[in-house]
Amino acid sequence: MLSYEAVVGAAARLAKTPVRKTPLVEIWEGVYCKLENTQVTGSFKARGAANKVLQTKGSVVCHSAGNHGAAVAWAAKLRGVECTVVVPRTAPEAKKALIRKFGAAIVETDHARRAQAVREIVDRTGASMVHPFDDLDVIAGQGTLALELPDDLDAVVVPVSGGGLAAGIATVLGGDKVFLVEPEGKGLGKALAAGNRLLDPSMEPLAETIADGMRSRALGERPWGILSAKIPPSRVLSVSNEAILEAMALTFQDLKTVCEPSGATALAALLEHRDTIGARRRIGLVVCGGNLDVPPMLRRFYRL
Amino acid sequence: MLSYEAVVGAAARLAKTPVRKTPLVEIWEGVYCKLENTQVTGSFKARGAANKVLQTKGSVVCHSAGNHGAAVAWAAKLRGVECTVVVPRTAPEAKKALIRKFGAAIVETDHARRAQAVREIVDRTGASMVHPFDDLDVIAGQGTLALELPDDLDAVVVPVSGGGLAAGIATVLGGDKVFLVEPEGKGLGKALAAGNRLLDPSMEPLAETIADGMRSRALGERPWGILSAKIPPSRVLSVSNEAILEAMALTFQDLKTVCEPSGATALAALLEHRDTIGARRRIGLVVCGGNLDVPPMLRRFYRL
Repeated sequence: MLSYEAVVGAAARLAKTPVRKTPLVEIWEGVYCKLENTQVTGSFKARGAANKVLQTKGSVVCHSAGNHGAAVAWAAKLRGVECTVVVPRTAPEAKKALIRKFGAAIVETDHARRAQAVREIVDRTGASMVHPFDDLDVIAGQGTLALELPDDLDAVVVPVSGGGLAAGIATVLGGDKVFLVEPEGKGLGKALAAGNRLLDPSMEPLAETIADGMRSRALGERPWGILSAKIPPSRVLSVSNEAILEAMALTFQDLKTVCEPSGATALAALLEHRDTIGARRRIGLVVCGGNLDVPPMLRRFYRL
Repeated sequence: MLSYEAVVGAAARLAKTPVRKTPLVEIWEGVYCKLENTQVTGSFKARGAANKVLQTKGSVVCHSAGNHGAAVAWAAKLRGVECTVVVPRTAPEAKKALIRKFGAAIVETDHARRAQAVREIVDRTGASMVHPFDDLDVIAGQGTLALELPDDLDAVVVPVSGGGLAAGIATVLGGDKVFLVEPEGKGLGKALAAGNRLLDPSMEPLAETIADGMRSRALGERPWGILSAKIPPSRVLSVSNEAILEAMALTFQDLKTVCEPSGATALAALLEHRDTIGARRRIGLVVCGGNLDVPPMLRRFYRL
């Protein structure tokens, strides 16, 4: 388990870095968006990466679909150490470009080989591994987001992939307010009900969702330990691609802010599960990231 | 001509409405974006429309490619009067939806018939016409944007279609700091050099540019009167679709803010004409609007 004090300690560490206290903006009456898309590196991942990398010595390595990789690359640059990021071949170009922008080396592999690729780099170089979610320092860093939320929210809706962000937030807020959002097909509600983290044995990423940052099938062991103790299965909300797209469009149009599909899943959950969370009066939605492949999106639309 | 005092008077009028003082954010060192995409109705047009409609009696009518129509519809709703907007059949769906959202009636026509369509409505209903740019109250309203800029900018880059926004800003700042941005093919530099507003006699809209809010070929008489007296032809910067698209992508990625193509033209001008304006140290770019057809853009990209 992780203590509240560990998260407060992480916040003190981050206060000395460029990590931002991101804005909370009202999208509809009583519904607030925490804009982690405007965080440095374009996602909440900068929080956990900075908290971890500031406590390691020497070079670092990680695997990531994109945002964690960019965040670790940024944190390594901040600290002046070398960084290698192992990415799946399918990662969006924008995310790979961001990793390179912060001066990290990129190694592309298939999803199944990523753990092994990281191990080889650790063995060869002695670099420290920065896990995207299964690490208490990373979870504590992500949890700092919750310290910035107003006390009077009745519900906080958090996207879940490996579970680091949600575990950090639940550590601060307790389980009562927290709703977990997953892409359809992940089956986290069933896993929680069965008390079995690996209920669905496949470790292949979720291929169908457009939320490219949320393709992990299983929670990490540490996030599972925290979340399964605090969150009942009924508080898991599954979202369809259609709802994610509608929520992205609303975010773009009504807030004029750019989110990636994962970043729109909390609003998508509100659209699809109003009955479950809508009864709560003041609702916070975590817009977790904003890194999109913008040029090809615009080129296709404007036929350029 | 328009006086500085008229713009200050407009600002006093707008201060009693929901029209916003929009943020100015730094995109690169010394380069600032004035985010009129976050203005009410999603563009600077709310300023001029509100200033005009608050001074008229009874119902209003206008023609518009979109943003002016939405702004007049919004201002009419604020004042509690009826509104009709004549739009070209080619206007983006998002802009038409915004006009309807504010309760206005829409009349679709061909570009060539729009003035006549407005006249018929004025004759039939006695509504007041709110011109998108050729009206001193509208120009004064748009000029209020300049009152919100810091004094120490060395250059302010302003998109030009009919010229209302640029004329209002030049009224406040004088001509020395102001650069005008046009889509390629408009020929404003040549028109200013020749002292002939209608140098290019075609009144067909510019079809090639992706900046759908900037398709007017000629300035209005009143904006022309102001701008031709203050701005030399060398201060007109033409931007290509490629540069507009690149600037949109930078705005989306680096600021996480949603702009429409017209809204990215000032940054596009900085990309394409760095040598002309780049020597000035502190540069303000007017991001004039953010109303995009987001759902089809996302659908096409995510194949949904």
